[in-house]
Formats: sequence, structure tokens, C-alpha cells
Amino acid sequence: MSQFRSETDSMGAIDVANDRYWGAQTQRSVGNFPIGVARFKWQRPVIRALGILKKAAAQANARLGELPKDVAERIVSAADEVIAGKLDSHFPLVVFQTGSGTQSNMNANEVISNRAIEMAGGQMGSKTPVHPNDHVNRGQSSNDTFPTAMHIAVVEELQQRLFPAIATLRTTLADKATAFSGVVKTGRTHLQDATPITLGQEIGAWVAQLDFGIEAVRATLPGLYDLAIGGTAVGTGLNAHPQFGEKAAAQIATITGYPFRAAPNKFFALSAHDALVQTSAALRTLSGGLMKMANDVRWLASGPRCGIGELRIPENEPGSSIMPGKVNPTQCEAMTMVCVQVFGNDAAVAFAGTQGNFQLNVYKPVMVHNVLESIALISDAVLAFNDHCAVGIEPDLPVIESNLAKNLMLVTALNRHIGYDKAAKIAKKAHHEGLTLKQSALELGYLTEEEFAQWVVPLEMTKPSV
Amino acid sequence: MSQFRSETDSMGAIDVANDRYWGAQTQRSVGNFPIGVARFKWQRPVIRALGILKKAAAQANARLGELPKDVAERIVSAADEVIAGKLDSHFPLVVFQTGSGTQSNMNANEVISNRAIEMAGGQMGSKTPVHPNDHVNRGQSSNDTFPTAMHIAVVEELQQRLFPAIATLRTTLADKATAFSGVVKTGRTHLQDATPITLGQEIGAWVAQLDFGIEAVRATLPGLYDLAIGGTAVGTGLNAHPQFGEKAAAQIATITGYPFRAAPNKFFALSAHDALVQTSAALRTLSGGLMKMANDVRWLASGPRCGIGELRIPENEPGSSIMPGKVNPTQCEAMTMVCVQVFGNDAAVAFAGTQGNFQLNVYKPVMVHNVLESIALISDAVLAFNDHCAVGIEPDLPVIESNLAKNLMLVTALNRHIGYDKAAKIAKKAHHEGLTLKQSALELGYLTEEEFAQWVVPLEMTKPSV
Amino acid sequence: MSQFRSETDSMGAIDVANDRYWGAQTQRSVGNFPIGVARFKWQRPVIRALGILKKAAAQANARLGELPKDVAERIVSAADEVIAGKLDSHFPLVVFQTGSGTQSNMNANEVISNRAIEMAGGQMGSKTPVHPNDHVNRGQSSNDTFPTAMHIAVVEELQQRLFPAIATLRTTLADKATAFSGVVKTGRTHLQDATPITLGQEIGAWVAQLDFGIEAVRATLPGLYDLAIGGTAVGTGLNAHPQFGEKAAAQIATITGYPFRAAPNKFFALSAHDALVQTSAALRTLSGGLMKMANDVRWLASGPRCGIGELRIPENEPGSSIMPGKVNPTQCEAMTMVCVQVFGNDAAVAFAGTQGNFQLNVYKPVMVHNVLESIALISDAVLAFNDHCAVGIEPDLPVIESNLAKNLMLVTALNRHIGYDKAAKIAKKAHHEGLTLKQSALELGYLTEEEFAQWVVPLEMTKPSV
Amino acid sequence: MSQFRSETDSMGAIDVANDRYWGAQTQRSVGNFPIGVARFKWQRPVIRALGILKKAAAQANARLGELPKDVAERIVSAADEVIAGKLDSHFPLVVFQTGSGTQSNMNANEVISNRAIEMAGGQMGSKTPVHPNDHVNRGQSSNDTFPTAMHIAVVEELQQRLFPAIATLRTTLADKATAFSGVVKTGRTHLQDATPITLGQEIGAWVAQLDFGIEAVRATLPGLYDLAIGGTAVGTGLNAHPQFGEKAAAQIATITGYPFRAAPNKFFALSAHDALVQTSAALRTLSGGLMKMANDVRWLASGPRCGIGELRIPENEPGSSIMPGKVNPTQCEAMTMVCVQVFGNDAAVAFAGTQGNFQLNVYKPVMVHNVLESIALISDAVLAFNDHCAVGIEPDLPVIESNLAKNLMLVTALNRHIGYDKAAKIAKKAHHEGLTLKQSALELGYLTEEEFAQWVVPLEMTKPSV
Repeated sequence: MSQFRSETDSMGAIDVANDRYWGAQTQRSVGNFPIGVARFKWQRPVIRALGILKKAAAQANARLGELPKDVAERIVSAADEVIAGKLDSHFPLVVFQTGSGTQSNMNANEVISNRAIEMAGGQMGSKTPVHPNDHVNRGQSSNDTFPTAMHIAVVEELQQRLFPAIATLRTTLADKATAFSGVVKTGRTHLQDATPITLGQEIGAWVAQLDFGIEAVRATLPGLYDLAIGGTAVGTGLNAHPQFGEKAAAQIATITGYPFRAAPNKFFALSAHDALVQTSAALRTLSGGLMKMANDVRWLASGPRCGIGELRIPENEPGSSIMPGKVNPTQCEAMTMVCVQVFGNDAAVAFAGTQGNFQLNVYKPVMVHNVLESIALISDAVLAFNDHCAVGIEPDLPVIESNLAKNLMLVTALNRHIGYDKAAKIAKKAHHEGLTLKQSALELGYLTEEEFAQWVVPLEMTKPSV
Repeated sequence: MSQFRSETDSMGAIDVANDRYWGAQTQRSVGNFPIGVARFKWQRPVIRALGILKKAAAQANARLGELPKDVAERIVSAADEVIAGKLDSHFPLVVFQTGSGTQSNMNANEVISNRAIEMAGGQMGSKTPVHPNDHVNRGQSSNDTFPTAMHIAVVEELQQRLFPAIATLRTTLADKATAFSGVVKTGRTHLQDATPITLGQEIGAWVAQLDFGIEAVRATLPGLYDLAIGGTAVGTGLNAHPQFGEKAAAQIATITGYPFRAAPNKFFALSAHDALVQTSAALRTLSGGLMKMANDVRWLASGPRCGIGELRIPENEPGSSIMPGKVNPTQCEAMTMVCVQVFGNDAAVAFAGTQGNFQLNVYKPVMVHNVLESIALISDAVLAFNDHCAVGIEPDLPVIESNLAKNLMLVTALNRHIGYDKAAKIAKKAHHEGLTLKQSALELGYLTEEEFAQWVVPLEMTKPSV
Repeated sequence: MSQFRSETDSMGAIDVANDRYWGAQTQRSVGNFPIGVARFKWQRPVIRALGILKKAAAQANARLGELPKDVAERIVSAADEVIAGKLDSHFPLVVFQTGSGTQSNMNANEVISNRAIEMAGGQMGSKTPVHPNDHVNRGQSSNDTFPTAMHIAVVEELQQRLFPAIATLRTTLADKATAFSGVVKTGRTHLQDATPITLGQEIGAWVAQLDFGIEAVRATLPGLYDLAIGGTAVGTGLNAHPQFGEKAAAQIATITGYPFRAAPNKFFALSAHDALVQTSAALRTLSGGLMKMANDVRWLASGPRCGIGELRIPENEPGSSIMPGKVNPTQCEAMTMVCVQVFGNDAAVAFAGTQGNFQLNVYKPVMVHNVLESIALISDAVLAFNDHCAVGIEPDLPVIESNLAKNLMLVTALNRHIGYDKAAKIAKKAHHEGLTLKQSALELGYLTEEEFAQWVVPLEMTKPSV
Repeated sequence: MSQFRSETDSMGAIDVANDRYWGAQTQRSVGNFPIGVARFKWQRPVIRALGILKKAAAQANARLGELPKDVAERIVSAADEVIAGKLDSHFPLVVFQTGSGTQSNMNANEVISNRAIEMAGGQMGSKTPVHPNDHVNRGQSSNDTFPTAMHIAVVEELQQRLFPAIATLRTTLADKATAFSGVVKTGRTHLQDATPITLGQEIGAWVAQLDFGIEAVRATLPGLYDLAIGGTAVGTGLNAHPQFGEKAAAQIATITGYPFRAAPNKFFALSAHDALVQTSAALRTLSGGLMKMANDVRWLASGPRCGIGELRIPENEPGSSIMPGKVNPTQCEAMTMVCVQVFGNDAAVAFAGTQGNFQLNVYKPVMVHNVLESIALISDAVLAFNDHCAVGIEPDLPVIESNLAKNLMLVTALNRHIGYDKAAKIAKKAHHEGLTLKQSALELGYLTEEEFAQWVVPLEMTKPSV
């Protein structure tokens, strides 16, 4: 028995391995686009989204009388397997293909068709009783299905992967901020010693920045909930039932649990993907905040002896193959590398987003790929950072206290008692002679030891009071 | 009489020209930062914002009993001149200075102090009766004032410059979309002929994209309304009255008419400027949409004989110094150049946004500069494009009709009447033999001339109906 | 028998699967960095480069008397397997790890050690007779080995993958330029009809741009030939034989056939990777040229009826699931998507390149990953484009001739015969009345039909003669 | 007498102020492109380059008999004034205009024509005896003149502004590296204490990076020396003497002293500006190095008490308006802000570089603007940094020595004497008990005080010896 069967499309016949569900167009794409094969095959989120889309489309078509009920049911069954991940190995195509994602749309059509045929006891490749174009792709075009799948995939990844990951880290940090709200330490501006803050305030700023970043991402959800489905080839909806887009979007909402709807302007939905550009930009902002946090952590943990050394972070691995006793901030390093990658991914997305022409933007695959990759990397890195670094962050109290004690900027507390000019003189004398502030103040005779103790109370300086 | 007076700061005395209101710190900065002097001096929006801020701060301090009423009034009078633009020539500093904008904050303090002194009949440089630090900068630090001024400047420029400019173009385009809603033309996907759309639909997609872009910008306003004021040097509010931030922000809201408020987390407000990063990103998205529109316009207007030629755009200037009769899409070119500049500006902003350390991000000036420049360039380019191009866009009906008549993709209308396969054969025969669809269809005998006329109605193909 | 063995490092013992050669540090990294596991494991080029490096290091150490000859030979044997790709499954680590690539350096040390031990009949994990640190990593630190491997990997990929791929496309295009050197066609500037050129000249410009781009990449090779090896942990070479770097680099040159050498300044070689940044930038320039070419191809092939339509490109797949007869420029789309990805990758590389501190840049893995990915993607896309598009590009002569005949800009040829003003009038009349130039000229009576035929010779207009 | 005269072009007449030399096309552009007027007028380098170009073109045309000698001389005289900067106020146009720079080319033609007419005693606007098109623009098109001027401007700015500025800083740093070659200090990797280096080595790495960066810029000169001149409108050289390009380029070389030549492929020279893209990229690399250096300086100077504090930098201004005694690394801040700006500028250039179509890239003005701005900013910032920071950098020897003394990584020196394991134990004990290495070593009894003194010699650890 042959290991291959013949599959056909409008260009003719082509051999496909018997154990693959895909058809002619997928097979041609495998041959035509051997680009980045090792790393750029579509992964779970896009395959799953295509399955959801095809299921919803079949259901919508059935309700509108555009598809026989039994055909629709067969499509749904096969699509459910796509959704569940049982057929991932039948999606061999890569990101760098037709810019509308046509071949991946056809890949889904072909796999669902053939799997449905198989379940029906038919002959794969026969297109009977479930035809990839006439049935699975009914009322659809790649131009509206692929961007629909893009939005589904991104929303699911945001909701199920990114938001929980960030929430985990946020909780860890917020707990740390609370726990260390009484630890007074040197503030730093321009990398220079500044007036005191609490460690809780310092960590709280990271939490606030995380909150801002994730809220920025969340604010892009409405744009993602608008689906191109129903626009077909150019946005007019030609060859689809007038209510198809709306019904299909409603089904997608039902299946996923997210409030998807048909986009009000399908022409825009096909010719530009600004919602994705905005999501990408917000991920960039979020990663900027993560970079700032990770940098703060590693600088605060720098040393152990010749750096700032105010934080201790977990030792997860030997630091160096040559130097005993060294602990490197490796989770910070992984995190910041992820951040620059997200910046790069975003640059690609935004560039691609400008390059639409007329009724279509043909950079769809590369756009969704980069957004999904950014989501995945941030999520993974945030969880690794949480588990292997953040949860173990501890203040090195002796260092913090020693730094604070010698911090000349405590002098600011004296401004209101002895005036700016005398305070400045105390600080300058201390600075030039290597004294503590108290020593300098006493030598200058501007105040007594008791006054110093009463007036220079670092914790008080961290509170908004006169 | 000397042309110079002596001004002092904590480093000592320095000569300043008598006809300049600025003081010692501004003078030092002029000497220390001769970087990009011809192009990077602060312009109206930032100077005005500093004036607004200083006025509001004086009012707030007066209300809180932190400043004598008469001193506050003097500050307000001088600040009003700064706001009105009367003292712009006294702001000589450039973007590339201290990363906290310290010197521009001091420039404002010094100018307001000296101008107030002058109005009071005092001696400039005497710091009496209005002291630049103790009075004008009362309860403030560069670290909270400069980012406050950044937000004020950006909000005002968005509200008063960008939004009206975009609204103007939006109206023009929406009117065109309505006017041309009956012009049926060839749709294009993958740069290939596709099923028909109306010119109204095509232009309507640009409108929808503009709407999305400007809404994205608008969505960043809440972040911009949060002001750092009240945080002073590190975010704790040290040396400010506990209610100062809140009161000053309220005054700023009153002066500007926009709902500014004191940021809930001042540590975040000093150490990161993610609100600006988000604004910059949204401006990038908006400019991506403008680029797509401008590209569509020039491609549709390409020709006159050997391009697409479906649109006519105004002739504003001779096109070429060598070729008579050529009209170039120069407004589209200026617009797309602005778009790539906005992309560049945004890259700088986002990069800078990641580089905060501890309690301060010291890339403040370069961030606000780029955001303001993007706003100004988009606004100017959009108005120029509107006035010199968009208002004059007209369809070239003969070309549109000729293109449509020969568009093979009208065959899609036959799918539901004679089936996909026969429709495909008609198209292929027409394609290979250089026939019109009708000729091909009739030669193949698949339908009658009457049926063709009845079934292939391009306008119908642009409407969502079965 | 247990499926796991115990491996140890300075942190203690950890279980490793018996069928894996890696040791404790690799195992820890697997647990600590579950980031992007599905897509970011190191691939052939880096693994091979680590093998080459370890082999060369062992040879150099042996020659310098730093390693017993038999130990060196055992290392070489195991390293040869790494080089040959036999042990790829024993390199489980991902890009997002320690920023110095420490764990991948240790992965190589551990795998080579254990495989050498196995070949010697010893017990894996025993570190006898080949110790991962003392022997395999002899005279090395991650800080100098990983950047050395980075350069080796990039050079090999450039030389063996990118350069041949570009050369293939270059040959195809140069042949086309020659073949079509007699095809005169409309030139286009500002998307507007311009004076004629030959198709050979048009394609020749793509060739010239390719040449420039690849030469730009080639110009970065000298920077890549400079290896960090010999710098050990901070650049001083501490704990390495003074001649180790030089000898190891010479061995690497011998093994690879490329003129690697020890970098003259090791401190720079560890703390910055500007050579990689330059390579990345040149790849960006190259991809910019590819984007321009791919865009030209698809615009020239636009249509078939309502676009420019001067080129025909191969039909590789059905164009649309809804519209019969449509052929999309899919290879151009894949190519331009690759180009925006390369832009994104480059943005990540350049950003990372700025973030070194003191004696180390800890963004090494993400930098080399992105450069290698860009090389791979460009190479793959160029070959696919060559095979499935460029080789099949043909002029559509009737369209080209028809466009040329109606091109008003041929009028420029009349300037020197009848003057600019009359020529302009001919063009304007033709433009406004829809005439050909000849019709217009004759109606205006400025010249005879014979003169027109003699003076307006498009081919002559493409040659640099007066 | 009227303050305006009438100027004409092919579109008709338009009023121009009598005291301006420009003509009709410039005047139209002023009206059509009111975009970024306050900041984006062309500055000296481009105006000067246009003058050089026009002078060279007139000389070449005269030699080739294409222009009467007296007309050529008149053009040269007027062009000399443009070159010298006497007519800058007659160049009112901005960057965001026609994408080929057509209007600035015409601006030059018109100003030179009218100024020459004036010098000849003629009537401005009469185009006699020197015609802007027929004489000044003889044998030229904007499409080849503007990119020619772009290259001239960039080369002059690199040679006369950037290279000397970098050389100045390089000398300062190299001198510091020599001066501090005996200062042994803590090395740092991963922000963690590492084995010692000398301050000379640390600064020497900056020098090496500067050398690499400037060499990268220099390597782009050959591309810039290739001029588009001679290509005229589409690259064929139509309407120019066949030797015009070559002769004009030779004149440009003579005038400037740089080895300009006519580009071998004019089609490439008009349709892409990859030489500029490469220059921009190299400027980005250079700025990346400057950023690393500036960051190192400010971190090493961080403190004064609670940071690293190993360097002292000049106090140029009061650091804070609230905190006495604080000195901020303001020159580092200005420098790093310039660096992110250069990154942004480069992003714009590279994006623009991809967007050519057919025979022309119409992003010429924005490309050259950004490259020139990057050159100017880096040059200015480097000189300011040199004068106000680098020359005053001094080691804080007590801090350096104290840090070094407590640096646990000196233990590495013991590896070869007592083995890795014992050395590690010494370091760990010291680390956990807060001891110095010597204390720990002696307590553990692994060596004597004399051995410690003999074996742990930081200076020896900075030298490549076994």
C-alpha cells in the first residue's frame, strides 16, 4: 500500500503522506517556504485559535442555514481535536509564508476536512462529505479568518498566560513591600545618595510600574475583541451570509469566554492590525518596567563587598567557573534579555503594521508571531524571576544601616531647623573630611548631639509630613 | 554701566548679561551643555508648562501658608509672563543637559525670581524679595517639577494641536467617503486585483484607522493627568507640605482646564515615565495609520498613464525640474517622512524609558522632547496634507471604470450561479486569452449575456448580502 | 538500576538522567530557566562553535604544557562529536539564561567531560579522568569562551550559509539583467511615470544593492575574527597561560579555515560586542535592500489587469480560497516579513549592545541568538525567493510596450530639439486630452511624424549619450 | 516701490519678497510645507553642500562645452557665497517636503540664479543671464543632485566635526589610561566583585571601544564617496553630457579635498541610500560605546558614600535644588540622552532606507537630516563630556584601595597554590562571617600570613602571566 495519497487543489494533484491530514495547499507551502523551519512553525496558540474559529464558523453557518447540520457537526468534531491539541503535528507550516496567512487557513481547512472525512469513514483527499473550501471555509477568506485567529490567539495568551504570571510577581512584590515597609534606607537619584526612603517604598514603585504596564496591556483588549470575521476577501463580506460575521464572533465569544464581536469596520480589520501594534507597544512598556525592576534588583544586590549590597538574592547556581563564592543575578539577566527581545519583537510588529496596501496588510503572520512570542517570553521570564529570585529577596540590614548612617543627604532634615546654608556647610565638611554628619555638625557647633538625634530621624524623612 | 551682573548659587558667583533674567545655574548650564544649540532649545510648550507649574505651586503654597501671600502674588505675575510667552528668550537651555531637567527647573525659578524682583523694583540677582529656591521652588525639586511640566506640555499639545489637526483631516476624509460611496472600483489584496469595493469603503477604512489611532492616543491621557508634583526629590515629599502635591495639581487643573491630579504613587512618577512611553507608542500607531493612508493615496494616484491612476490629487508645484507634465505626490512624501521620524522618536523614548535607576529616571528631557516633536510634526503634516492634498482628492472615473471592467475577479459573483469550477474556467480563459470576463463566459457558453448583466453587478458585490 | 545519577558542583549534588551527558550546572539551569523552551534552545551553530572552541582550547593547553596530552586527546575526541552534531540532544539550555552564557559554557564542559569519561570507560559524574572545570575549561572563563563561540558561530553561518545564498540570488538576478538588457520600459520616480530605462537597468540596480549589502556584511568579518579567548574572567587572562589566547585562536583558525586571532584588547572583547552589533546592522542594511527588491517585484507584477503588470512571476500555489485565477506574490511577502523580522532582531541586538557594565556585557546570549536568526532567515528566504520566484521572473512584453507607448515622459527626448517649453505643451495637451504624445505633437504642429519617430527613441533615452 | 517681485515657474507666477533671492518653486514650498518650521530648516551642512555641488556642476559643464564660460563663472561666484554661508537666510525650506529634495535643489538653483543675475546687474526673476533650470541645474535632476549633496554634507561633517571630536576624547582617555595604569582596583562582572584590573585597563577598554566605533564609521566613507551625480532623473543620465557625472564628481573632490567619484551604478544611487544607512548604523554603534563609557563613569562615580565611589568627576553645577553637597554626573546624563537620540535617529534612517520604489527613494531629506543630526549631537556631546568631565576624572584612591582590600575574589590567586576547593572555602567563610580573605585564610589554617602576602598580589593578577 502506498505511503502517499494524491491531494488536489486548483493547481492540480500533489502527493501527501498518508499519515498526515493536510492537503494539497499545505503540501505546496511546505515545499515553497522552507524558511526558519526549525524555529518558526506555528505553535499551540495559533493552531488552537484556528480550531476555535473553524468550529465557530461551522456553527454560525449551520444556524444561518448555510451549511447542512451534519456537515457542521462533523466540522465541529474535527475542530475540537484541533482545539485540544491532538492534531498539532498536522500543522507543519511556518510564519514566513503568504502574508495573509492563507496557507495556514487552508492548512486548518484541509486538516479538519480530512479528519472529518476520516471520522465519517470516507476517503481522505476526496473532499467528501466535508469539503475544505465549500464547507470548512464556508463564508470565509484567509483575509478575514487569519486576522480573526490572530486576535483569538493573542487574547487567550494574554488572559491565560501573561496576566496570571504578572499577578504572581505582583503579589510577591507587594508582599515584600509590605514586609519591608519599616526598613529605612538610602534613596538614590542620579546614582547619587539621596534622602531616605523605605525599602517598602522602593519596591512599591516597582509594583506601581507593573500595575501601570499590565493595565496598559489590558487597555488594548477591546481592540483585540474586534474580529475581522465576516469581511471575507476585501471587507465587503462578499459570499458570506450578511449575519455570518456577527454570529461567528458570538460563537467565538461563547467558546472562549471572552467578549469577542464582529469588527464594526471590516475594511480596517483586514488592511491594518493596529490593535496588535498597540498590544505589542503595551508589552514593550511592560517590559520596560520589568527591565527597570530587574536592574534595580541587581544593582541593589551588587557586591558582595564592593557594590551597593543592600539586597540579598537567592543563589541558584555557581556563579562563575573560575571564581569561588560569587553569586550572579542570573534571573535579572535573563529578564533583561527578554526585555530587549520584546523591544526587538515590537520593532518588527510596528514596522510591519505600517506596510499595508489597499485592502490588505500582508504581514499578518510575522505580526502575530512576534506578539505571541513577547507574551510567552515575558510570562516565562516573570515566573522564573518570581520563583527563583523575587520570593527570596531579602534586605541586608547591616549594609542598609551602614549606608544610611554615612549618607550625607540626611542633612536635608536639618534645613528647616538650622537653614539651608548651615546644613550645606555640615554636609560639605563631612564630605571633604570623611566625617559622619553628626561629627561634622558637632565640630561646626551648629547643634547638639541631642538635637541631631531628635532632628535627623531617617524614618520620619520618608513620610509626607512637614 | 556694566553689561553684566553677578549671580550666585551654591558654587559661587558668575556673570550674567544684564538683559537676561536668568541666574547662575542657567548661566552655568549654557556653558556646560553646548549640545545641539541650534535645534534643541526648549520651545513654547515646555516653557509655558514650567510657567503654569510655578504659578500653581505658588498658589498652592500660599493657600497652605507655606508662602507669604505677597510673595506668591509676585511669583504668579512673573509666571503669567512665562505662560504668555513674553520671556521665551530667557530660556536658553537645551534638551541635552542634566537628565532630570534640573537646570530648566532652575531656569524657570531664576527667571521668575528675577522678573518678580524687577517688577517689585528690587535688584536682579539679589534673590529679594523673591528667592528662586526658597520661594519659587518652594516645596519642590527638579525631580518632581520637571516631570510635572512634561505632562502639562504634552497634554496641552495633544489637546490643542494634535486632536484638532486630526479632526480636520478626519472630517475631510469622512466627507470624501460619503461623497464617493457610489463609486465602485477594483479592490486590491496582495497588490492583486480583487473583488470590488466602493471608493467610499476604501476611504472609510482610512477614517476608521485614524479613529483607532487617535483613540489610542486619547487613551493615554489618564496616565498623563497623573502629576509627580508633591514627590520632591525621591518621592517621599520631604520638605513639601503634605497637601502640596494635591493642591498644586488642582491649581494646574484649574489653570489648564484639564483634569490633572497628584499621582497616587510618587516614587513611580519620578523613577519611570511609562505614561509618556505609552503616549509615544500611540503616536507611533497613529503615524502608522497615516503612513498607510498616504501610501494608498499615492499608489492610487500613480501614473498618470503607467500606474494605477484611479485618484487625482492636487498639483501644488512643478513635479520635476527635468520632466514637463509630471505631478508628484509630495504631500504624501512629506507625510510618510514624518511617520518614519515619529518611529525614530518613539524608539528613543521607549529606550530612554527603560533606563531609570532606583528613585529617578534621568532621561526626562530627551523623552519629553521627542514626544512633543512627534506631536508637532504629525499635527503640521496632517494639516498640510489636508489642505494641499486630501481636500482635493477626486476619483478619475474613466480609469476606475476601465479598471473595473477588465477586473477578472468580478467572476466571483458567478460562483453561486454556475459554481466555483466553471467560474474559475471563465476567469482562466479570460486571463490567458486577454478577454473580458463577459467575452470568456459567452465563448464558453456557461451563461447568456443577459445573465451576465444580471449576475455581475459590481455595486452589489460591495454590499453584505447573499 | 537507577535512571538517574548524581552530579555535583560547588552547590552540591543534583540528579541527572543517566542517558544525558550533562552535569550539575546544566541540570540546575534547566530548572532555573524554563523560558521560551519550545523555541529558544541553542541550535547547531552555537553548539558546534562550543565544540570547536573546546577542542582548540584543549589542543592549545596541551601544546603549552597546561594539560596532559592524553587528557587533551580525550577532550578532542568528545569535542569532535559535539562539532559533528552527534550530541546536540545533550544541549538542553535556552537563550534566556545567565547573560554571560555561563551555563552553556558549563554545558559544553560537562558534556565533553562526561562523554570523554564514558569513552575512557570511566564513570560519568566522577570528573575523572576528564574534569569539566580543571581540564575542559582549563585557562578559560565563560566570559571569554562564550563570546569566542559567538564569533565562531556567526562567522561560520555567514560564510557557509548567507554568502552562498546571496550569491545564488545574485547570479540569478544578474543573468536576468543581462537577458533583459534590451527590454525598454517606463521608469518610475515618485511612483509617477518617468523617462525610460531598460529592465536590465532596473534589475541591475537590485544587483548593485545586493552587492552593497553583502559587502557591508563582509566588512564586519575582521571584527568577528577577533576572539575574546585568553581574557578569562575580566580580560586580564588571569589563570590562563599567557600564550593561551593566541594559541587557542590559532587552533580555531586551523579547525575552521577562517583567520581568527586573539583580540588585541580583551577587556573590550568581554565588555562589549560591537562587532556583533555591526554585523547585525549590516544584515539590516542587506535586508533593507532585499525588501526594496521584493517590493519592486510585487509592484511590477501587480495586476493582472488593474495594476502595473510589467512582470510575470511564477504561480506556486492557488492564490485565494475565494477568487479563482488570482496569483499572489507570496515569495515577496515571505521575504519582506523576514526583512521586518531582521529589523526587529537588530533592534534587540543594538539595544543589548549598549548595556554592558564595567568588565562584562551580560546580554551575550540574546545578541548572538538574534544575529544567527537573522542570518538563517535571510539565507532561507533568499533561497526560497530565488528558487520559487526570481528564476521565473519574465517581462510581460505587451504590457511593457503598451505602458511605454503611452508614457508622456518620453517627451523629454524632445527638449533638445524643440525646447523645454514646446515639449511641455505637447505633454500637457496629451495629458489633458488623453492623446498619445505623437498625436499631441502632430496636432500642435511642432514636428513631423518622421521627426517624432527619429527623435523619440526610448532605447536611446536609456543610454548615457547627448 | 513694491516689496515683492513676481517669480514664475511652469505653474505660473507667484510673489516673492524682494529681499529674498529664492524664486517661484521655493516660494510655493514655503506655502505647501509648513511642517516643523521652527526646528527643521536645513542648516549649514546641506546648504553648503548644495553650493559645492552647483559650483562643481557649472565647472564641469563649462569644461564639457555644455555651458558658456561666462555663465559658468557667474554661477561659481554665486555658489561660492552659498558655500561660504552668506546666503543661508535664503534657504527657508524644511526637511519635510518632497521626498526627493526637489524643492531644496530648486531653492539652490533659484538663489544662485538670482544672486548671479544681481551681480551681473540683471533683474531678479528674469532668469537672464543665468537661468535656474537651463544653467544652474544643467545636466542635473533633483534625483541625482540631492543625494549628491547628502553625501557631501555627511562626509564634511564626519571629517570636520565628528572625527576631531572623537579624537579629542580619545586622547584624553588614552592619557588617563596611561596615567592610571598602576592603579589596581576591583574588576566587576555581572555587577559582582571580580578579580582585579587596573584603572588603566578599565579606561583602555573604553578607548578600544571608541576606536572600534569610529573605525566603523570611517569604514562607511567609501560608500559616501560614491555620488549620484550624472544619473539625472532615473539613473540613465538622460539630458546630461555622458562625462558630466565623472567631471562634476572630480570637481567636488577638488573643492572639498575628499576622494568623491561618480557612483558606478547610478540606478542604485538614486533608488537606495544604503551608504547613509550604513553610516547611521555605525554612528549607532559608536554611540552604544559612548553610552557604555558614560554609564561606567557614573556608576564608578556613584555615591559619594553609598555607591561605588571609585572615581571622582568634576563638579560643574549645584547638583540639586534641595540637597546640599550632591554632585550629579550631568555630563554622563547628557551623553546618554544623546545616545538614545542617535538610536532613534538611526531607526528613522533605516526604516526610510527600506522604502524606495522603482527608480527612486523618496525619503532622502529625512535620511540625511537624521544622519547629520546624529553627527552633530555626538560631536557636541563628546566635546562637552571631554571638557567638563573626562579631563577631570580622577581615581578616589582610598575608596579603590578599600574596595580592593575587601574583595573576596582575590582568592582566585590562591587557586594554583592551594587548589580550587580550599580557595573556595576561604572565600565562603569570609563571605559568611564578614572577614577579610586574609583573616579567613589564616583562621582556616590553609596558609601563612607571609604566603598570603606573597601569593595575593592584586597587581600581579592584572597581568597575563602564569
